[in-house]
Amino acid sequence: MKANDPEDRQLRITPRWEVACSTAPGRLVAAGVPGAAQADMARAQGWDDWHFADNYRRFAPLEDVDFVYRTAFRAPELRPGESLWLCSKGIDYQCEVSLNGRFLASHEGALSPVEVRLDPAISEGENILEIKVLKAPKKEGAPEGREQASHCCKPPVSYGWDWHPRLIPTGICDDTAIVVRRAAWLGDVAFKYVLSPDFSRADLRVNSEVCGREDGVFLTFSLKDSSGREVLSRRAEAKEDITAVLSNPRLWWTRDHGDPYLYNYEVVLHGLNGEVLDVRSGAAGFRRVRLVMNEGSWDKPEGSPKSRSDAPAQLELNGRRIFLKGANWVCPDVFPGLVDEGRLRSLLDLAVGAGFNVLRCWGGCMPEKDAFYDMCDALGILVWQEFPLACNRYPDDESYLGVLAREARALVARLRNHPCLAIWCGGNELFNSWSGMDDQSLALRLLGSICLEMDPRTPFLPTSPLTGMAHGNYLFRDGDSEVYQWMPASSFTAYVEFGVPSLAPLPVLKAIIPENELFPVRPTAAWVAHHAFGAWDGKPGTWLGEETLRHYFGPASSLEELIAQSSLLQGEGYKAIYEEARRQKPHCSMALCWMFNEPWPAAANNSIISWPDRPKAAYSDVSAACRPRLASAAFSRFSWRAGEEFPLALWLLDDTFGQPSESLEIKAFISPEGASSGEVLVGTWQTPPTADNTNLRGPIVRVELPSWPGASRLRVSLRVSGRPELDSTYILAYNP
Amino acid sequence: MKANDPEDRQLRITPRWEVACSTAPGRLVAAGVPGAAQADMARAQGWDDWHFADNYRRFAPLEDVDFVYRTAFRAPELRPGESLWLCSKGIDYQCEVSLNGRFLASHEGALSPVEVRLDPAISEGENILEIKVLKAPKKEGAPEGREQASHCCKPPVSYGWDWHPRLIPTGICDDTAIVVRRAAWLGDVAFKYVLSPDFSRADLRVNSEVCGREDGVFLTFSLKDSSGREVLSRRAEAKEDITAVLSNPRLWWTRDHGDPYLYNYEVVLHGLNGEVLDVRSGAAGFRRVRLVMNEGSWDKPEGSPKSRSDAPAQLELNGRRIFLKGANWVCPDVFPGLVDEGRLRSLLDLAVGAGFNVLRCWGGCMPEKDAFYDMCDALGILVWQEFPLACNRYPDDESYLGVLAREARALVARLRNHPCLAIWCGGNELFNSWSGMDDQSLALRLLGSICLEMDPRTPFLPTSPLTGMAHGNYLFRDGDSEVYQWMPASSFTAYVEFGVPSLAPLPVLKAIIPENELFPVRPTAAWVAHHAFGAWDGKPGTWLGEETLRHYFGPASSLEELIAQSSLLQGEGYKAIYEEARRQKPHCSMALCWMFNEPWPAAANNSIISWPDRPKAAYSDVSAACRPRLASAAFSRFSWRAGEEFPLALWLLDDTFGQPSESLEIKAFISPEGASSGEVLVGTWQTPPTADNTNLRGPIVRVELPSWPGASRLRVSLRVSGRPELDSTYILAYNP
Repeated sequence: MKANDPEDRQLRITPRWEVACSTAPGRLVAAGVPGAAQADMARAQGWDDWHFADNYRRFAPLEDVDFVYRTAFRAPELRPGESLWLCSKGIDYQCEVSLNGRFLASHEGALSPVEVRLDPAISEGENILEIKVLKAPKKEGAPEGREQASHCCKPPVSYGWDWHPRLIPTGICDDTAIVVRRAAWLGDVAFKYVLSPDFSRADLRVNSEVCGREDGVFLTFSLKDSSGREVLSRRAEAKEDITAVLSNPRLWWTRDHGDPYLYNYEVVLHGLNGEVLDVRSGAAGFRRVRLVMNEGSWDKPEGSPKSRSDAPAQLELNGRRIFLKGANWVCPDVFPGLVDEGRLRSLLDLAVGAGFNVLRCWGGCMPEKDAFYDMCDALGILVWQEFPLACNRYPDDESYLGVLAREARALVARLRNHPCLAIWCGGNELFNSWSGMDDQSLALRLLGSICLEMDPRTPFLPTSPLTGMAHGNYLFRDGDSEVYQWMPASSFTAYVEFGVPSLAPLPVLKAIIPENELFPVRPTAAWVAHHAFGAWDGKPGTWLGEETLRHYFGPASSLEELIAQSSLLQGEGYKAIYEEARRQKPHCSMALCWMFNEPWPAAANNSIISWPDRPKAAYSDVSAACRPRLASAAFSRFSWRAGEEFPLALWLLDDTFGQPSESLEIKAFISPEGASSGEVLVGTWQTPPTADNTNLRGPIVRVELPSWPGASRLRVSLRVSGRPELDSTYILAYNP
Repeated sequence: MKANDPEDRQLRITPRWEVACSTAPGRLVAAGVPGAAQADMARAQGWDDWHFADNYRRFAPLEDVDFVYRTAFRAPELRPGESLWLCSKGIDYQCEVSLNGRFLASHEGALSPVEVRLDPAISEGENILEIKVLKAPKKEGAPEGREQASHCCKPPVSYGWDWHPRLIPTGICDDTAIVVRRAAWLGDVAFKYVLSPDFSRADLRVNSEVCGREDGVFLTFSLKDSSGREVLSRRAEAKEDITAVLSNPRLWWTRDHGDPYLYNYEVVLHGLNGEVLDVRSGAAGFRRVRLVMNEGSWDKPEGSPKSRSDAPAQLELNGRRIFLKGANWVCPDVFPGLVDEGRLRSLLDLAVGAGFNVLRCWGGCMPEKDAFYDMCDALGILVWQEFPLACNRYPDDESYLGVLAREARALVARLRNHPCLAIWCGGNELFNSWSGMDDQSLALRLLGSICLEMDPRTPFLPTSPLTGMAHGNYLFRDGDSEVYQWMPASSFTAYVEFGVPSLAPLPVLKAIIPENELFPVRPTAAWVAHHAFGAWDGKPGTWLGEETLRHYFGPASSLEELIAQSSLLQGEGYKAIYEEARRQKPHCSMALCWMFNEPWPAAANNSIISWPDRPKAAYSDVSAACRPRLASAAFSRFSWRAGEEFPLALWLLDDTFGQPSESLEIKAFISPEGASSGEVLVGTWQTPPTADNTNLRGPIVRVELPSWPGASRLRVSLRVSGRPELDSTYILAYNP
């Protein structure tokens, strides 16, 4: 809230907080707000870097501890009609607020704001405000792990995941201040609009919740374009919706399809004499987002008896069916409260660099802070936002549903005005056996109802995957099947999760693994803690995948070599999946890798960005595979021998619109990797003329693989005459 | 409403109505209320039986005509605080109400009641009340057929279906009266309860909408058991929910699993001095209905990438997983307003006789009148109730959604207190290509929201089929595949629709087909009008299926023979499907044939009851296949020859609970049908001990088929020693 106060009066106090375990209330330490009590304790006690080895286990005893945040402040003088409030955007997870020893309120849920009126309990001198944050919720009788959070809205990832240590943060996790409120102030402001079918007009309806007194106050509204020019202004009564028509709105597009053009709206609440009581402003982008049926989906299932057709998974932006390329976004830190704008900025710049037009904010984690969505608005990245339910069976009982409803309403109110917000989703993999929820689960029916009521024009999925969509696989090679086989054998509308693991870059490993354990890699406490062994689904090889690496490359002689092997598989694996998903367009419309980032430095993981924001080698492969247009080759396997016939299926992958049609000349070469000579032309393809959003399927060219003594990698190079930005390279295993 | 009026004062006037086309308002004819204007016109003008030949076409011009219902009445004297209302439970489809020439109200939708206050416009002498019923809605530009109703809540079946003539009724279709209301009266009364997990208590919450004045009035509530003994009584303020706990409620069961035990509740609204202002009473049955995951559904899909598991389709009644056996119920008449309790009673008695425990009230039709649900409550038949959406793409636009919301709310309020009401469903086959709706369609999201809000403990399906469920096939033989092949090759959780057609019984045919067209059967106007030819999906043979009959039996020499052939296929076909679906238990949990009844006398149709309530020959086969326990045999095809090896897979199908365990001796015989000798014992199976709700799979017994000169049918008889009620018979085609 930025109030345009004519007297420049202090309206917000952001006090300094201290925090203590409730068992030792006197031992107060400085609290980072926003942040997490556990991080404060570690800092105050000078713990060694908890990212190192298995130091994080030191946090375990803090799971079952209450914390008390405390601040002392002098209350500002209040004028008639004014009131004093504690306003927090998020306290994780349950809290009790008291002032000068007097209990004022309790709250559950980190997504719904905590707003507590203070002035009736205020003293003249120093006031002591305390927020007691209760210990982490744990479902009685549940085994250690995510199920302990299956009765509440606490994101389950903190209870331990195959890429997240068990470390459960609690505390004040978002902006928190003591606020003077005038006689009236703005609550939720819903900026809604409907675009006409031809996008030539936007019918705006702005609904502003006016709190406090409603009589004698009025609203003004203005909309400015990106140059600051006012294009609309209105005045309305406090209870009235503001309506207006904007002609020929400039549309908001994802970065790969246009300009993420933003207007700015401002709602001002005025008092009797026109004085400003409160102001709310935000970015406004005009776009129409729908999920429509994928090409070919109506033709299935065939025959009789017949079940239903697939669920729609084709995103349509402003009437254009676009292919979604992106990744799964998880909490950028084990302590979400510590994630600042700088971290978000560097991660989102990497998402842009990868050519992504969408991020799926995965349901096991806490939804992000406002800055994330502001940046996505500005960067032109769509957001698939999940509610914090994942891989658990959340119950039908009233008390859980009550908290969920409040949390969900708060999240929808906070995000629905963002043009980036493209899809609401109930949570992760809830219709699969390991979760055990289904179409009748009341929590998901409730979330669907709330989204329909509050944001009806944004698509809603009860969970992912739905019929026709897929999650998995998460390995380069599983049993005898490689990405080169299972992807072409699949036919899904949307690959919402797929992963290929790799080791972290060397500097990351050196920072988290004791030096004497670095090589040979073995399941020591540090490697296990950092997910290199036995992390996932009972597969001992995850996520290091040593058996797979050995299968292709034999034993590695150094950690550097092992990292290179693992990075090669991750890079080529991701390239193979993204490109094959794109080949399956238009039936397929989406490819999101699992996962983009990670909450702490994993030693081995499917992420393409190592914590906090260091790209792995595979990042550039993903970026290459996600270019709007590129030459592409499909292979049938990874390992090849001299003398074998090597077939290469040539493609031009093309998600562009509005480019001039042209015929391209694509030449395919092979060469021994790393060598400057020995390149062989396999074939040349003169493509037919390009057309909007249309892949071109080329010939399969073949060559008998030469014998290149000493070479162990085969490089495939596709070169597009005069258009080097469309060139592609692949590296495969080779045996001379 | 039955008011217990101490002064025995006239509270309801049910006037005599007349009706005229609005183009000739003077030509008034007697109106049947409830009924339909078209039926009144036909009766008044002495039209020939419109069921005969293609006489129904005479109604066509009445589609585009408005009708005016008119009645004259003297208003009763009103005491202070009283008001006079027109109260109609249903006017189909759009109307305008005026009194003494003064427009009072308009209304759209036959499911939401029309309630119009009259007294402000009343005169002292005679009053003329008029209800103008507008012509049938038709979507502009839509081709003739169901799409003409794709923009509104008018059930689409009347616009023509493969078993329904195009004949679109309009008019007053449910109870309608002029009512004196006291100062306060009861609106919607929601009788809700939650059963404890062990069913030992019911926590009741009765929410009564009090209309008119709320101050100074109060409510009393009583619950009586079936013997009339009061088991609970409460008093509450007008705005208060009535809450109470019933210990050890006697549970309501479907007829095949117990007793459909009913309590009776009564809510009385009292005035200041305790006088009775209004009374609402109804049957109350205590049961918990859920849809849970089918056995084995969590194991699928296998492998990776992986989509979702099937939607739950296993009904659980009071904690017991029961197999649903039933049928699809359609409007018992082309004019739903004409269906009276007698018709409903005879049809529902036939449903009981068939051994059904569920009826699916299909979404293409108008939901039934109250009497239907009252009878299902009492008979122990569950109801799967759909909203009136079928096979169309209903739009996302505000005006449609507004009407749909009002209609849906009215339907849910009307039915949710019924213990028979087991499943809400958005409508028929909406997630299939011929409809074109999908998971994002706002109409279905809206219906889900309304059901969640108003009736959260009743399962909701957006449509049928969902993932794992199936509709179809509707033929005994399609291409080269017979029911004996496609059923065992299928593996669905629920067979929600399947059909096998047959000719109507001879007396029905004689009543609808001109005598000189009866035989040989050919596509004359009468046969075509009555769905014998080209009725379905572009298949010229539907529904007579002459090609299939000829394939098995050669040409028939008389209509009687043709009927017998067709009835044999229908009976054996339905038996094969019901029994195979039951064999697939527990993964399969539901078998509902398409269809039970029909709205007019079809010459050929999948129904097992010919209009109005005449069982076809196959009815007894369906009844046999739906017995709770029976000996069953599976075959691989229909036609056999002497000398072939004839394998018979023996089963005991058993949906019973609580029966003493026993081992049964089942003998399988074959014989030439119709002959008194020639029976051959094929095999004997001594079953293992029976167990609750558990089918037993027996051996496959085999015999070389004897040569029975002159025989053309093979009879298979299963006889259970000492338990003739479990015996089964099958008739197959045989060639000596």
